[in-house]
Amino acid sequence: MQMDKARKRSSFGRWDIRKNRALQLWQRITPPQFFVASFALLILIGTLGLKLLPGLYTREPLSWIDALFTSTSAVCVTGLSTFDMATRCTWAGQAWILLLIQLGGLGMLTFASMIIVALGRRLSLRGEAMAVGGLEAAPHIDPRQLTFDVVRFTFLIEGVGALALYLLWIPKLGFAGALWPAIFHSVSSFCNAGFSVFSDSLMSYQQAPLVLLVHMALIIAGGLGFLTMEELALRYQAGKTRKIFRLSLHSRIVLITSLALLVIGWIFFCIFEWNATLRELPIVHKLTNGLFMSVTSRTAGFNSINYGEATDSSNFLTIILMTIGGSPGSTAGGIKTTTFALIGLLALSRLKGEVVTTYWNRSIRNETTARAVGLFVISFGIVTAGIFILTVTETFRNDEAHFLDCMFEAASAFGTVGLSTGITPQLSIVGRWTAIILMFLGRVGPLTLTAVFMVRQSRESSFRYSYEDVVVG
Amino acid sequence: MQMDKARKRSSFGRWDIRKNRALQLWQRITPPQFFVASFALLILIGTLGLKLLPGLYTREPLSWIDALFTSTSAVCVTGLSTFDMATRCTWAGQAWILLLIQLGGLGMLTFASMIIVALGRRLSLRGEAMAVGGLEAAPHIDPRQLTFDVVRFTFLIEGVGALALYLLWIPKLGFAGALWPAIFHSVSSFCNAGFSVFSDSLMSYQQAPLVLLVHMALIIAGGLGFLTMEELALRYQAGKTRKIFRLSLHSRIVLITSLALLVIGWIFFCIFEWNATLRELPIVHKLTNGLFMSVTSRTAGFNSINYGEATDSSNFLTIILMTIGGSPGSTAGGIKTTTFALIGLLALSRLKGEVVTTYWNRSIRNETTARAVGLFVISFGIVTAGIFILTVTETFRNDEAHFLDCMFEAASAFGTVGLSTGITPQLSIVGRWTAIILMFLGRVGPLTLTAVFMVRQSRESSFRYSYEDVVVG
Ligand SMILES: [K+]
Ligand SMILES: [K+]
Repeated sequence: MQMDKARKRSSFGRWDIRKNRALQLWQRITPPQFFVASFALLILIGTLGLKLLPGLYTREPLSWIDALFTSTSAVCVTGLSTFDMATRCTWAGQAWILLLIQLGGLGMLTFASMIIVALGRRLSLRGEAMAVGGLEAAPHIDPRQLTFDVVRFTFLIEGVGALALYLLWIPKLGFAGALWPAIFHSVSSFCNAGFSVFSDSLMSYQQAPLVLLVHMALIIAGGLGFLTMEELALRYQAGKTRKIFRLSLHSRIVLITSLALLVIGWIFFCIFEWNATLRELPIVHKLTNGLFMSVTSRTAGFNSINYGEATDSSNFLTIILMTIGGSPGSTAGGIKTTTFALIGLLALSRLKGEVVTTYWNRSIRNETTARAVGLFVISFGIVTAGIFILTVTETFRNDEAHFLDCMFEAASAFGTVGLSTGITPQLSIVGRWTAIILMFLGRVGPLTLTAVFMVRQSRESSFRYSYEDVVVG
Repeated sequence: MQMDKARKRSSFGRWDIRKNRALQLWQRITPPQFFVASFALLILIGTLGLKLLPGLYTREPLSWIDALFTSTSAVCVTGLSTFDMATRCTWAGQAWILLLIQLGGLGMLTFASMIIVALGRRLSLRGEAMAVGGLEAAPHIDPRQLTFDVVRFTFLIEGVGALALYLLWIPKLGFAGALWPAIFHSVSSFCNAGFSVFSDSLMSYQQAPLVLLVHMALIIAGGLGFLTMEELALRYQAGKTRKIFRLSLHSRIVLITSLALLVIGWIFFCIFEWNATLRELPIVHKLTNGLFMSVTSRTAGFNSINYGEATDSSNFLTIILMTIGGSPGSTAGGIKTTTFALIGLLALSRLKGEVVTTYWNRSIRNETTARAVGLFVISFGIVTAGIFILTVTETFRNDEAHFLDCMFEAASAFGTVGLSTGITPQLSIVGRWTAIILMFLGRVGPLTLTAVFMVRQSRESSFRYSYEDVVVG
């Protein structure tokens, strides 16, 4: 028996050893490493495509830095752009960017596991955990089903959105002319990318509430996160058969925080802009555009007003909402709604004198709140560093770039939002690199850092130093 | 026996009951309540004095809102001013403000307990805890001794500082003329108040490094906190007799964080301003003024340069340093160096996968770090609200007030720093009220909130909801 095995092994020869090595490497790579590497690879492919593919531009091709900037902005679903894509790119160029958006938005992981599933091979438990993060929060969800539903949901919702936009745009753009903008805007909205085929984004549709509403519905759906969407779908199905389906604590926090932020943003944007950028509009359009500002700022990046002319109060509120961002497991950036909610709940519970953070009759582990705090502190540090670099490189050389513009740009890049007060095309080389790094960290970093926390958290040592108190405040 | 007691009690009559009620009220009032009430009372007395005392002004007296603003600014050792004290106040007016600074800086509590001690009555343990907060961090310090030393240290250091400034200013201001400025600036520096008897603060002494150095020494000494100063003194004494005195973890964190912030600030201010506001100066003065910017921004509020002309980068760095502030138990404001350090250590320990925050071979309780986080979140929320109000009330009516000015002003008020880009005298009525509330919350709030946390923390219930996970990031 022993001899047989040894002979069998040797018969495979070198190829087998190499295969084993590749397998070992694959098994050794952690999910966060795979995640970061796949994003970096996609950005690289996108950059090369933008530089080398023919027929993407009507005028001169992009420089390397601008190609990298655009590819990063598309893959990280940000939407910041150093040039006007609408006039400079051909249909093919826009399609290449849209492909990057769709791949980046859905995430390479979901696609990779989809391909494996489609080939009939069962996903390993590890593969499933890599494909869709955050399942520990909802153990009653089947990961394979979720992976399928992610793609099914995406194309279903994008299809419906494209149809709605197509019908709305036929009168203005014609049967042929409305098709591409409808598809592009539907995908770009659902992926929260914020790229537009119009030079002025949605400013021409300031007084077309239905167009804005379709965009808002797509943005909100894309920003909730697949986990919450899956649970809402299951709850809907359970409701039809009169069964009881309890939403997870995670989804409750996501839904309530998102709603609260939307309403608060709506009210304050209306107040701040009522007699400013919205001055000329009838009341109904003031209200729609105020709501659109609230929806778009949390990660989408379309604009129906000119942020360069908005009040300082609005821009500061936009900066805060951009930093909070959307929900985990979605195409959104920022520190995420749950992080924001947990930090708020932590402060609240300490004020009430509770040792454990509780919400909706559930306790939240101290490790989870500590993770939220760690994430917040690191994100805060990254954005602060970005603002510093931009104030040094941009305001020194450009009298038009004020502090608020730099703060806005850094928050927009890190939150992968894509709104700008207008300084993106004038950014210096260092400024462009800063934005590229912020976009990449914003899309990939917080998730990865969390994963790093989670992997190592179990390593609790029995050794502990003696406690000593420190005065705080 | 029983009958005897009953007869005895009744013989005291009504007066006894009233006295008991007062005693009960005194026993029921918590230290934080006493602390807040004493500050509010001192501000009220200061305001009435500024309005009603004769001979305080060379020109027309202050309005009620400006009197309240000035009294709050003095008692909370902030230094923001809506008018030029140097030209508008007489010697008497300046002395009244200096009295408020000294009383506010040392804290009413220290004074109250000093008076009791001086009268020969022993302080109760509770009274001692009220007099000097934060003793739980250093159980080997005798509270009575610390209370004495607080006052002894203060007058000793202020005396030495005044003498040094007097000697330095004799050549320029004369034997009589140098006396009052020397006393005023020494007290104002040590209390980190930032009020000056010169209209341009210390801008005339930009090229007088010794004057700046004396101010810096006083500011740093005042900002370290009495606990740390006491420990340094004890260590110095122990060193003389070759005994070993181990600094507490608290004091180590205070010293290292303060030093790190000073050096980092120094380097970056020099870089940012080298060719800007410091352009005209020789190298040695560039370095001195860069260091002065770093020292003054963390809570003192004197200025040797014009912050209205500084670069955006410098002003943003100043905002961050103002928000961090000085150390607990000092005259400084802000979230405090220890809070900042603990939050950084928390993020670092989670990155390293440790469940407990450790530093210098000591563990820090999770309750302490949670307190630091709570304090940070609440402070962040208060400053953000302040910035919003100022952007609404100030930039709308005043084209000169930009976003950065509002952010600077709010951070300066809450951090009780007193630096300004120059918009204080033009603040609207709502803006003035906002600054008043921010100054009061900044001086009194964080301490009080911490105390509230500490009092209630022990109330741990045996009941606990089941845990449920939430996805973060
Ligand atoms: K976006
Ligand atoms: K001050």
